[in-house]
Amino acid sequence: MEIPDPAKERLLYLLKLLEKGGTLTLTSTHIESLTGWSRDSIRKDISYLAADIGSTSGYDVFALKNAIKKALHLDRKRKICIVGLGRLGSAYLNFSAFQYGDFELAAGFDANVNRVEILSSPVPLYPTYKMGEIIGWFSIEISLLCVPEDQAQSAADKLISAGIRGIVNFAPVILKAPPEIAVRNVYIIDDLRSLSIRIPSENN
Amino acid sequence: MEIPDPAKERLLYLLKLLEKGGTLTLTSTHIESLTGWSRDSIRKDISYLAADIGSTSGYDVFALKNAIKKALHLDRKRKICIVGLGRLGSAYLNFSAFQYGDFELAAGFDANVNRVEILSSPVPLYPTYKMGEIIGWFSIEISLLCVPEDQAQSAADKLISAGIRGIVNFAPVILKAPPEIAVRNVYIIDDLRSLSIRIPSENN
Repeated sequence: MEIPDPAKERLLYLLKLLEKGGTLTLTSTHIESLTGWSRDSIRKDISYLAADIGSTSGYDVFALKNAIKKALHLDRKRKICIVGLGRLGSAYLNFSAFQYGDFELAAGFDANVNRVEILSSPVPLYPTYKMGEIIGWFSIEISLLCVPEDQAQSAADKLISAGIRGIVNFAPVILKAPPEIAVRNVYIIDDLRSLSIRIPSENN
Repeated sequence: MEIPDPAKERLLYLLKLLEKGGTLTLTSTHIESLTGWSRDSIRKDISYLAADIGSTSGYDVFALKNAIKKALHLDRKRKICIVGLGRLGSAYLNFSAFQYGDFELAAGFDANVNRVEILSSPVPLYPTYKMGEIIGWFSIEISLLCVPEDQAQSAADKLISAGIRGIVNFAPVILKAPPEIAVRNVYIIDDLRSLSIRIPSENN
């Protein structure tokens, strides 16, 4: 059964909460108070998991986490790469969670061959023109796109023709991509604005 | 009139779309097709702006952008700082949009005095213990929090007692903060997961 997208988003958020918490069992009432979602909606979301995770005396947190990961296909490692090894890209190159977590950094790319040769890195680095073969070779699914704004679309085009399936875009550009390519925009100015509109004004 | 939070979020998203587009006037029908929101909801959101921005033949895009910025208090510069000058923090230290945009980087902080002295930076850097005076001095409102996971809560506590009003938290930690402090969590693994659940599985 295909899980509807809003339910997927809720389950992902629930997974995050479960990963933070220290409890072993959890009732829908408890989840309701943590998330603000109705118990009916929570039960329905969890019913998509089709797993034996208890219910009358509460859900088994360990089983629930695993069932969510499985249902959302987060139970296998995915290989990622970084395109654009400027300050931000090279910061993520050395990000420790990419060395032991569910997202395994496999390669980095930059158009500047000199930079590719000089940078110290825990993974192999390649010039951009090698993207086509390397992405297929390593079965890389997702790329962080850390190039400057004016190179973002052309780098995305190259990634897409190399077979990438998802792009986390750090450039302030709305990328054109076919519908089967997942794109997520993470631009710090947008985050700052979202935060700003939640700061009460001084004169209140 | 206080604008409800969901309307604020929609107006912010609309602002982003308007800033990308090249058109000069826009009808609610056009906004509907861009956003998927109903025309009634769009008209209601725009009515909160209480500005003369046209309507029968379409909204004036320039006036609409300004009215949204004004209503959301995004029409003035806000000062920001960076706490934690490791790889990610120092990448943002040199981020060009913080030198000319609406969010003006005023200072950087790190617990490591040596790092503070050595790093090249376009803004002054200080050891963490100076946070209290510097944040007040420069009227810094928002901080990027780029410290390691195990230091995030204590750094946030220091920021809050120094008078910060918002925190963009890069650490994988749910920060404890009083309700009047706005917190936004931007953890790359969460972005990768959100993206992953939108990638169709191979066997479909």
